[in-house]
Amino acid sequence: MSTSNTDLLVVGSVAYDTVETPTTTAERILGGSGSFFSVAASYFCNPGVVAVVGDDFDPAHEALLRDAGVDLTGLQHEPGDTFFWHGRYDDNMMSRTSLVTELGVFADFRPHIPDTYIDTPYLFLANIAPELQLAVLEQVRGASFIGLDTMDFWINGNRDALHKALRRVDAVFINDEESELLTGHRNVRKAARDLQAMGPDTVVIKRGEHGAIMFSNQDIFYCPAFPLESVQDPTGAGDSFAGGFMGYLAETRDTRTANLRRAAAVGTVMASFAVEDFSLTGLQAAQRDTIIERFDALRTLTSIDNLAL
Amino acid sequence: MSTSNTDLLVVGSVAYDTVETPTTTAERILGGSGSFFSVAASYFCNPGVVAVVGDDFDPAHEALLRDAGVDLTGLQHEPGDTFFWHGRYDDNMMSRTSLVTELGVFADFRPHIPDTYIDTPYLFLANIAPELQLAVLEQVRGASFIGLDTMDFWINGNRDALHKALRRVDAVFINDEESELLTGHRNVRKAARDLQAMGPDTVVIKRGEHGAIMFSNQDIFYCPAFPLESVQDPTGAGDSFAGGFMGYLAETRDTRTANLRRAAAVGTVMASFAVEDFSLTGLQAAQRDTIIERFDALRTLTSIDNLAL
Repeated sequence: MSTSNTDLLVVGSVAYDTVETPTTTAERILGGSGSFFSVAASYFCNPGVVAVVGDDFDPAHEALLRDAGVDLTGLQHEPGDTFFWHGRYDDNMMSRTSLVTELGVFADFRPHIPDTYIDTPYLFLANIAPELQLAVLEQVRGASFIGLDTMDFWINGNRDALHKALRRVDAVFINDEESELLTGHRNVRKAARDLQAMGPDTVVIKRGEHGAIMFSNQDIFYCPAFPLESVQDPTGAGDSFAGGFMGYLAETRDTRTANLRRAAAVGTVMASFAVEDFSLTGLQAAQRDTIIERFDALRTLTSIDNLAL
Repeated sequence: MSTSNTDLLVVGSVAYDTVETPTTTAERILGGSGSFFSVAASYFCNPGVVAVVGDDFDPAHEALLRDAGVDLTGLQHEPGDTFFWHGRYDDNMMSRTSLVTELGVFADFRPHIPDTYIDTPYLFLANIAPELQLAVLEQVRGASFIGLDTMDFWINGNRDALHKALRRVDAVFINDEESELLTGHRNVRKAARDLQAMGPDTVVIKRGEHGAIMFSNQDIFYCPAFPLESVQDPTGAGDSFAGGFMGYLAETRDTRTANLRRAAAVGTVMASFAVEDFSLTGLQAAQRDTIIERFDALRTLTSIDNLAL
């Protein structure tokens, strides 16, 4: 069997997005969960992406991912069009409307895990059909830490398969509305307890501009969002968060509580870079030293001295 | 001139509230900004309240405040009814509708500051008409640190007077919608910069279940809400926050950045007690040691270790 230095695998989408914000429309830019995740992770480890693209996929975009350090052995090419999404953000960039979703070759996506990846220690199942997530879990048997993302569409439509997948992962990344949909609890503590009972020891509930709360076994960690003055495009924030989180774990090989907290802060930092520009441009502008600067700023942002009473 | 050991003065309302939550209706319970603020502050200092009540005001409620350690020299009694508010919270306790507002004696409230209070070092102008806030500022000339609260009603209707008051205070406590209304900025960093330019060095933007962000000169502090499993009644959370904040400052006599951060955390803790029960019952259940316990829990909730890269 051949070997690979890939230490973090993501199975998700590589896509084209047309993004409308109140000030700008960017057409057919590179997007997709696998793209944002792997480029964010590339600052910390050697990510590989399993996804499918069509024959319209620009070789320059493949080069962009490869130049960022992403292993593309698992990027499948199929006849047809690459997954395309067209969305519009509202005035305050808090919510968005999907105008067009054309699955293209993604409709028949069957993730095939190359032999070199089956012992990859860190695995992220991005937001794809739970049946596909389960199919990946059947193929990657050596993973020591597995993360999973999902969305309302699968919670409503494929709940049984989603429950099966959740039982087999270590961490779930979910937003507050999805966690309410899945558990029936709006209260995050109650929702997290139910989610942990479904399988994952670690539950990360994302709350957009309000940051994230991570429940890890008995630990509760409240991570603020990085306070940016200007957000250009929120697309990919969640995947960049997960990419920073999982990439940092893959680099440090430490999944104890204190390091999971650091990982959530690193994820927050990577999301902050992602939203500062369209497509992967914000992430690409990050540097190891500016990442560390923002991490330290995030630590400072919430630090409280001991009580002097 | 007589003297007083009152070190923190609040000018606001003492009122009766009927509060409807999804599970309970509590009728004509003691409320009002002055009540919540002063009882929260009473754990740290000697607060006094300037407010007006009618001849329907129950002596037992006056005793309750006095027993909590609140100085009532400035509690004015007038013929008529005490300010009455009837509100209903929606299903997730996030928003509320005012069903009845009867100003009663509050309609003609002219805050008269007793002589014993004119040198009180800490002053809080609760959410009353900006003209009244200005009238208080004319009377209390010795205050070294002044906080101010306001609301959309005054921002829309009395903006000039509000601007005059803002120029003379050290800290403003405002929620995120009000800060957008006052500055035109939804982005908290931009809103805070504008608010600081209006006068106060310290701007506390409250975001309900998402906590608060404090901008103090150049410092930014992100304080999470205390993650409760159950909220009985959100009424008074903001005033309890401000009471804990200002009370802690009055106790420690230190308004440097690190201590303002502690004050915001103390405020968060006091708000968490307030919302656990109706009226002042949640605040009254607090103890010095349970306050410190929650403060330490809040510190732990956001702490991040140095990056190990």
